[in-house]
Amino acid sequence: MEAGLVTESLETAESPTPVTTGTLYGVGMGPGDPDYLTLKALRVLERAPVLVHFCKRGRRGNARTIADAVVRDPAREMALAYPYTTELHPEDPAYVAALAGFYDDAAGRLADHLGAGRDVAILSEGDPFFYGSFMHLWRRLKDRFPVEVVPGVTGMSGCWTRAATPITWGDDVLTVLPATLSAAVLAERLRGTDAAVVMKLGRHLPKVRAVLREAGLLERAVYVERGTMADERVVPLAEKADDEAPYFSMVLVPGQGRRP
Amino acid sequence: MEAGLVTESLETAESPTPVTTGTLYGVGMGPGDPDYLTLKALRVLERAPVLVHFCKRGRRGNARTIADAVVRDPAREMALAYPYTTELHPEDPAYVAALAGFYDDAAGRLADHLGAGRDVAILSEGDPFFYGSFMHLWRRLKDRFPVEVVPGVTGMSGCWTRAATPITWGDDVLTVLPATLSAAVLAERLRGTDAAVVMKLGRHLPKVRAVLREAGLLERAVYVERGTMADERVVPLAEKADDEAPYFSMVLVPGQGRRP
Repeated sequence: MEAGLVTESLETAESPTPVTTGTLYGVGMGPGDPDYLTLKALRVLERAPVLVHFCKRGRRGNARTIADAVVRDPAREMALAYPYTTELHPEDPAYVAALAGFYDDAAGRLADHLGAGRDVAILSEGDPFFYGSFMHLWRRLKDRFPVEVVPGVTGMSGCWTRAATPITWGDDVLTVLPATLSAAVLAERLRGTDAAVVMKLGRHLPKVRAVLREAGLLERAVYVERGTMADERVVPLAEKADDEAPYFSMVLVPGQGRRP
Repeated sequence: MEAGLVTESLETAESPTPVTTGTLYGVGMGPGDPDYLTLKALRVLERAPVLVHFCKRGRRGNARTIADAVVRDPAREMALAYPYTTELHPEDPAYVAALAGFYDDAAGRLADHLGAGRDVAILSEGDPFFYGSFMHLWRRLKDRFPVEVVPGVTGMSGCWTRAATPITWGDDVLTVLPATLSAAVLAERLRGTDAAVVMKLGRHLPKVRAVLREAGLLERAVYVERGTMADERVVPLAEKADDEAPYFSMVLVPGQGRRP
C-alpha cells in the first residue's frame, strides 16, 4: 500500500513524471546443462524485457543456447557479436582498440534501454564475475544504473562434476590458470599448487600437455571438453591422442589432500 | 515402451524380484541464499526420501538452513554431527581417527538406505566436489551405489558477487588458499598469483592479515562474512577493526587483469 501511495505522489508532482531506470542484470548461466540454472537466474530470464548475449560472428553464443529452454520470444533478444575472437593476439593494439570500441558501443545500446526504464539481462556463461565478458559492460554502466549480479555454477565446477573427481580436499591449494600464459609461467604456477584447473585450452593444448608432463602431473590430468553441454567429452589427458581442443575445454589436475 | 517390456521381463523372472538400489546424490546447495539453488538441486530435494546434512553438535548445519524453503518433512531428515570441528588440529591423530570413524559409521547408515532402494541426498554447502564433506562419504560409497553429483554455486562466487567485485579479468591467475596454511606458505603462494581467495578464516584472520600487508595486498583485500546468507557482512579488510571471523568468512583479493 505504501509503495502505491509513493507512486501516486510522484505521478501528481508538477515536474514531468521521472522515468525509473531499468536494472542491469549479470545472469550466471552455469556450465551448460540448463538444469544447473539457479532459481534466481530463471526468474530474471523469464521477466527481463531485454536479453543480451555475446557470440562469435555468424554463430550462436553458448550462453544463449543454455537459455533455449526458457527464452521463446525473439523480440526480447539482442546478440552482441565480437569483432574478433581468436584472430588476433589479445595484446595486439588493434585487438584492444576493436574490443574497447565494441564494448563502448554495446554499453551505449544497453544504456538506451536502461535509461528508458527497461531491465537488461546479460547472459553470462558460468559465473558473471569469473572471467566474464559481462564485466566489461558492468564496468561501463555500474555507476549510472542499478546493477544486480546473479552468481552461477562455474564451467570448472561443471567439468569436475562430470569428470567425477573432487578437485580439492582438506587444505589443498587450487590454482586456476588460463592456458594462454607462457609455458614458463604455467610451469612456475603449477609447482606451487596441489590442484589446478587450466582453462581456455584451444590451440594451447600441446603447450599445456608438455608443461604437465614436465611437472610429473600428466597421469593425474583429466581433459574435459564442453562439460555438461550436449556434446561433452571426458578423457584422461594421457589418453587423448590428438591436440585438437575447443575454447570451451579445460584440463583438471585433482588435489590429493587429507581424506580421513 | 521398451523400458516397460524390460521391467516386465525382470518381474516375471524366477529369481526373487531384485531390489534396485537407491542413488546417492551430492547436492550443491550454493552459498547461502536459497534463490541460488539450481533447478536440479530443487528437484532432488523435493523428491529424495532421505536428506542428509552435516552439522556441529547441538547446532543446525548451514546447508540445512539453505533448504528451509524446500524441506518441510522432518521424517526425511538425517543430521550427521561431527565429533569435532575446531577443537583439535586437523593433523592430530586423534582428530583423524575420530573423523574416519564418523565417516565410516555415517557411510554405513546411508548404505542401509541405499541398499533398500531409497535415494539419499547429501546437502553440501557450495559445490560438493570443492572442499566438501560430501567427498568423504562419496569415497566410501561410490563403488557400491549409483552416484549423481549436482554442482552448486560456490561460497566464493557468492562472496565476490556480494562484494560487487569481479575476481578475474583476462589472463589473471586465481589462487584459492585455505587460511589454515602457514604464514610462509600463504606468502609464497600469494607472490605468484594475480587474484586470490583465502577461505576458512576463523581464528586465522590475524595471520592472513599480516601476510597480505607484507605482500602489499591489504588495500585490495575485501573481507566477506557469511556471503549471501541472512546476516552477511562485506567490508574492506583494512577497515575491519577486530580479528573476529567465523569459519564461513573469506578474504578476496580481486585481480587487475586486461580490461579493453
